[in-house]
Amino acid sequence: MNGGDGPPRSGDQIIHDGDGPVHEAERITRPEALQVLSKRQLAILPIGATEQHGPHLPLGTDTFMATEVARRVAARTGALLFPALSVGYSWVWRDIPGTLGIGEATLKQVIKDIAHNLHRQGLRMLVLLNGHGANESALKYAVRELADEVATKILYFSYFNHFGEAEKEVIQSPKWHGMIHACEEETSLLLAVKPELCHMERAVKEYPEVPPVYGVSALPLGSLSESGVYGDATLATAEKGEKLIQAAVDRITDIIETTWKEV
Amino acid sequence: MNGGDGPPRSGDQIIHDGDGPVHEAERITRPEALQVLSKRQLAILPIGATEQHGPHLPLGTDTFMATEVARRVAARTGALLFPALSVGYSWVWRDIPGTLGIGEATLKQVIKDIAHNLHRQGLRMLVLLNGHGANESALKYAVRELADEVATKILYFSYFNHFGEAEKEVIQSPKWHGMIHACEEETSLLLAVKPELCHMERAVKEYPEVPPVYGVSALPLGSLSESGVYGDATLATAEKGEKLIQAAVDRITDIIETTWKEV
Amino acid sequence: MNGGDGPPRSGDQIIHDGDGPVHEAERITRPEALQVLSKRQLAILPIGATEQHGPHLPLGTDTFMATEVARRVAARTGALLFPALSVGYSWVWRDIPGTLGIGEATLKQVIKDIAHNLHRQGLRMLVLLNGHGANESALKYAVRELADEVATKILYFSYFNHFGEAEKEVIQSPKWHGMIHACEEETSLLLAVKPELCHMERAVKEYPEVPPVYGVSALPLGSLSESGVYGDATLATAEKGEKLIQAAVDRITDIIETTWKEV
Amino acid sequence: MNGGDGPPRSGDQIIHDGDGPVHEAERITRPEALQVLSKRQLAILPIGATEQHGPHLPLGTDTFMATEVARRVAARTGALLFPALSVGYSWVWRDIPGTLGIGEATLKQVIKDIAHNLHRQGLRMLVLLNGHGANESALKYAVRELADEVATKILYFSYFNHFGEAEKEVIQSPKWHGMIHACEEETSLLLAVKPELCHMERAVKEYPEVPPVYGVSALPLGSLSESGVYGDATLATAEKGEKLIQAAVDRITDIIETTWKEV
Amino acid sequence: MNGGDGPPRSGDQIIHDGDGPVHEAERITRPEALQVLSKRQLAILPIGATEQHGPHLPLGTDTFMATEVARRVAARTGALLFPALSVGYSWVWRDIPGTLGIGEATLKQVIKDIAHNLHRQGLRMLVLLNGHGANESALKYAVRELADEVATKILYFSYFNHFGEAEKEVIQSPKWHGMIHACEEETSLLLAVKPELCHMERAVKEYPEVPPVYGVSALPLGSLSESGVYGDATLATAEKGEKLIQAAVDRITDIIETTWKEV
Amino acid sequence: MNGGDGPPRSGDQIIHDGDGPVHEAERITRPEALQVLSKRQLAILPIGATEQHGPHLPLGTDTFMATEVARRVAARTGALLFPALSVGYSWVWRDIPGTLGIGEATLKQVIKDIAHNLHRQGLRMLVLLNGHGANESALKYAVRELADEVATKILYFSYFNHFGEAEKEVIQSPKWHGMIHACEEETSLLLAVKPELCHMERAVKEYPEVPPVYGVSALPLGSLSESGVYGDATLATAEKGEKLIQAAVDRITDIIETTWKEV
Repeated sequence: MNGGDGPPRSGDQIIHDGDGPVHEAERITRPEALQVLSKRQLAILPIGATEQHGPHLPLGTDTFMATEVARRVAARTGALLFPALSVGYSWVWRDIPGTLGIGEATLKQVIKDIAHNLHRQGLRMLVLLNGHGANESALKYAVRELADEVATKILYFSYFNHFGEAEKEVIQSPKWHGMIHACEEETSLLLAVKPELCHMERAVKEYPEVPPVYGVSALPLGSLSESGVYGDATLATAEKGEKLIQAAVDRITDIIETTWKEV
Repeated sequence: MNGGDGPPRSGDQIIHDGDGPVHEAERITRPEALQVLSKRQLAILPIGATEQHGPHLPLGTDTFMATEVARRVAARTGALLFPALSVGYSWVWRDIPGTLGIGEATLKQVIKDIAHNLHRQGLRMLVLLNGHGANESALKYAVRELADEVATKILYFSYFNHFGEAEKEVIQSPKWHGMIHACEEETSLLLAVKPELCHMERAVKEYPEVPPVYGVSALPLGSLSESGVYGDATLATAEKGEKLIQAAVDRITDIIETTWKEV
Repeated sequence: MNGGDGPPRSGDQIIHDGDGPVHEAERITRPEALQVLSKRQLAILPIGATEQHGPHLPLGTDTFMATEVARRVAARTGALLFPALSVGYSWVWRDIPGTLGIGEATLKQVIKDIAHNLHRQGLRMLVLLNGHGANESALKYAVRELADEVATKILYFSYFNHFGEAEKEVIQSPKWHGMIHACEEETSLLLAVKPELCHMERAVKEYPEVPPVYGVSALPLGSLSESGVYGDATLATAEKGEKLIQAAVDRITDIIETTWKEV
Repeated sequence: MNGGDGPPRSGDQIIHDGDGPVHEAERITRPEALQVLSKRQLAILPIGATEQHGPHLPLGTDTFMATEVARRVAARTGALLFPALSVGYSWVWRDIPGTLGIGEATLKQVIKDIAHNLHRQGLRMLVLLNGHGANESALKYAVRELADEVATKILYFSYFNHFGEAEKEVIQSPKWHGMIHACEEETSLLLAVKPELCHMERAVKEYPEVPPVYGVSALPLGSLSESGVYGDATLATAEKGEKLIQAAVDRITDIIETTWKEV
Repeated sequence: MNGGDGPPRSGDQIIHDGDGPVHEAERITRPEALQVLSKRQLAILPIGATEQHGPHLPLGTDTFMATEVARRVAARTGALLFPALSVGYSWVWRDIPGTLGIGEATLKQVIKDIAHNLHRQGLRMLVLLNGHGANESALKYAVRELADEVATKILYFSYFNHFGEAEKEVIQSPKWHGMIHACEEETSLLLAVKPELCHMERAVKEYPEVPPVYGVSALPLGSLSESGVYGDATLATAEKGEKLIQAAVDRITDIIETTWKEV
Repeated sequence: MNGGDGPPRSGDQIIHDGDGPVHEAERITRPEALQVLSKRQLAILPIGATEQHGPHLPLGTDTFMATEVARRVAARTGALLFPALSVGYSWVWRDIPGTLGIGEATLKQVIKDIAHNLHRQGLRMLVLLNGHGANESALKYAVRELADEVATKILYFSYFNHFGEAEKEVIQSPKWHGMIHACEEETSLLLAVKPELCHMERAVKEYPEVPPVYGVSALPLGSLSESGVYGDATLATAEKGEKLIQAAVDRITDIIETTWKEV
């Protein structure tokens, strides 16, 4: 884990995130990768985004979160952990400087290409660990098409859909239209993972008014909130975030292990 | 920002950031990104790969190198540094476990989507900093098509094409068919950047024989070298690598600055 | 035209056309279409599906509902009513005989082509009236891309998302995982519109168990429910359906009229 | 089912369903569809268009005709009758308000997706019943590509190519450049099927002059005829139309039955 | 240039170049091409095919004919003559050794790319001179799409559709289902152009029987005729061919010149 | 066939067909093509371009060269020789009148379609004989994708990469940035093949200066050289060209024969 005190990343090969070490594909060699996969034909690909998260959270928030949850799940499952895809479908923020977005069809194709490549290598199960809500559609449709094309079993998790009861227990402020973006919830999450990148002194509360065409048109969502926050970021704490993360990691690991037996 | 006061990342210790701080998009907030771009409408996107680099170098070698060169160029130019794309066109290694490849047309589309997005934001110049030889074609053709589609000026550098005279000065062993892969040169480069991920005790020398259809067919290159090394990795040193990197950073920075004046 | 003097279509008897006649593009001539559009450059395209809806509802349920809601909104707004697209994205039922599905990307392209065509004709606003949940993603992404491509303002409504309070007031049984499919709600809706096609003697109650991979994999949803019903269809009545429809028509009409003023 | 006891649809009155009931997929349930296909793995998809047909015929003329011929063929053959695709390739009328056109490649893809879906379901033969001349090319090329992709045998009929001798016997006025559009022939056809939608008091005769680039350029055909009629609509009668329809239904049924034996 | 003084190509002997020299793009230099286009911004692209033409005609028959007609039209109009595209849409013969076919969509894209390129160069009119019936659809739809994309006026001629009265005057045997393929007509044409490649001693007469699914399915046309001839090749003479060619050249030239005035 | 008794084509006089006749697909009939392929399932497709080659060489230079080398290799190997594709990827000259370019993706698709067609016919080996440097990327990626799609073994040769030692022996002037274009080398080559189309009185020497963005941007290469020559064309002789061609033919033939044994 890389939660509060910021343990160094170099020499991650001996990190024990729970039951076992994390095997970061990027940082290990060919024979090591082969060994990891020989034990278990399971890999995890974190998928994030680079886009605005208000005045207090970094643009890489979604990538950091996807990576952290993926790391913990990899530690539990022994999966090979691939480096995160740090570019996602960020259409609603496309006009805000610093957003690094690709099209929905392009993201879908990236996922499909990767899955086909891993299928060739004989991978038994691929887990897509998504940290960005707007990526979900591309993942879902890619996975459906892949079901007819590759033998590799593919699971996709938007980690924030797997908090279960923990969400109600720790989060005090309401969601803005069901969205989690730079709010109490997401700020808490990043506080648990990258506290050094959170600027809580700039955290604000904003519940932008919603025009009637929200959700039924190509509304530029980015212009609704002045601050870029959608909720109350001031209520966030690292403890809340840590509880949510642990809940998600538990549930996601459970589903992976249950599914593994049936594949 | 990760200029002076930020927590160091592994491998950061030998980075010479030159004149200024590095503005990592992933680690800064929306107002900070805006400020960076307001000073200079210039951004750099490192593009790497995840693929075998012999028994001694990590799979992320190309991504680490692209990121490091991009970081230094960003420090010199004040550019916004985007997180690296860690998946590339890795067809020749597609059957080796751990390779994370996408198609050439897909990579091209990713670049095009990103460029279109940044063009919308008014970016004046985008630098693609490539760390993987096989990505080059996708970049080249993307940039040509984009020339008719976006106002953003785009430059693409495969950093290893810009060592100039330094290459002859420091590299002792011949290249295998003009390729740089897990050899003296690439191993030296990574030794300068991520020494903790290099396993020099496993470094070998291998110049695989070349079948007649090499370069004129879809030969599975991956099967030519038993070790995955194409050259003599045992001759590598961090000093050689550092000299090459500095030469590339100098030349690339020069071209960016010269071009900037004409855009 | 099919306002007052036209021959009634089966099931038309309980239609309440509101303030004005319905201008069905399919049934009027070129000069009449021109006249309708000259008064108001507004058109509605119903989008349905042809797929299983349990033992008691017809395969065309989604198309019939989209058409009916669209008819009523057209009557209120004076819009030109296009014939329904009766083929949609029906991936989850693709293996059940009688399903007539197209791909998500194909559906998106159909919508885009149509919008481009209507844009050429100078249409000011196009309303996509969707009757099938799984179509929504294709519509959403089509509309976003179109926002940069055509001048026609496009709104898309999945009518079942616009019941507001009426849903809680009339529906007694819980939804199966948030889904409306051949349940109390959908059966009530069709009872209000096509009673002659509903076979209530075959209506059943089924809440299929959900495997752990539901929502995180390409699970063949179609195999979960034996009957094809997801909820309790036995509680359905035409009165419930009529209340829901009226609520949706009111809300959708409101949004259209509000938006019209701003276009 | 809408064979004997179902409520009549407008215009249904002169339909001669031949030997058996018509199984409309849209109006029957899942078990009924299964039963129909269990008897015979044969389905018919009518394909129409929504475009101008002069001052006297409705925009849906092609869809109505495709549907009617398909209905009669379905009655003869016991095929499952799918709802019509009411949007086609209507490029030449794309600038006339009310036209609802999609691209040729898009139409082809719709057909291909549908055929792949039905192939999955084990359908033995699919009949595309086309009512619009300009759709023919998309159908032809789709069917050719599908021949290598699916096991389902596919036949496509533009019904107006199958009148045989009947055409010469009943039609008095010459065709305008081999085209059937809102002329004596097409008006007669619709008079036999949807008399209540034909406005014979507005029927005209117009044989527009043909510029030299007709047929060798992207000439906007829509601007040639002032009325939108290409021929002499005033000579049309329902009797003529009925004879033509019966001839086409006979021939199309024959080809289907002959082919069925060989599949 | 290959007008008067150039060395003759085989088969060139009976060419009647009309009023002026033929400017073959392939054989002239950059300044010469510039000069030709400076006089008149008009170019001709012959489009052929490589496919079986019975036991007596060469596979390149369609390319040779497209080239010859294009040459004569170029001589009359002063157009720049591009080299022929010798690969076309030859689906029906795709299983016969020697056929060199590409897909319909691919052929369409080739035409579109070429037109876009010539539009960039400021070409005023492009003439596509087609020698192969099955190419026509790709050309037609390419030209329609291009009408909205480029300023260059594009005309496309399948030369064999422009014989006018001459066809009836010289051709004695009936066409096989409206098709011209290795029959009296096509053999006569090639006899006039490439007599040295015609093997009249092998010319046969064959009118294959037509199965009921001809024209309504993906019938492998190639298997219908044993010889590959569809008509009576034995009646062919060079004189007949020459008359047809002259008629086509006259008509095509006329349409080009008439259209030129209006562009 | 054009082995011994056929009429010579212009420029054919210095062709040395080696061991056997050349079987030009375009000029032979169906039974002859079958016979050629029955002996050896090997075919060659020359791929050229139509683009500027300075004031002294014809636009078809690349096509002529690809064809000539292909002819000689065909004579040596008994392969079926297909007609050349005379349109290639000529992006850098796209603004110069007379260039006939298609996109890189389009060229790739053309190659893929052709290979799929020939695979259907049972062809064992296809040789792509390329005469234009910029085509190489499209060929390379097409061949890689085809390796997973067709059984036909595919080799691709850019003939100018196969001169071996002969290049150093005969060429006196340096290459301009590794490029061969209208220089001593290419001019010599064409002098050996189409002397009647070379205008040596206009041959010039030009080594354009290179801006810093050359090779790292979408630089319009076409504007660098005033004459269109990149090197010293004045040094060219037919003898030099003939030596180079013979060297390439030898090497290419060798690789084909060696590979043939292993296929």
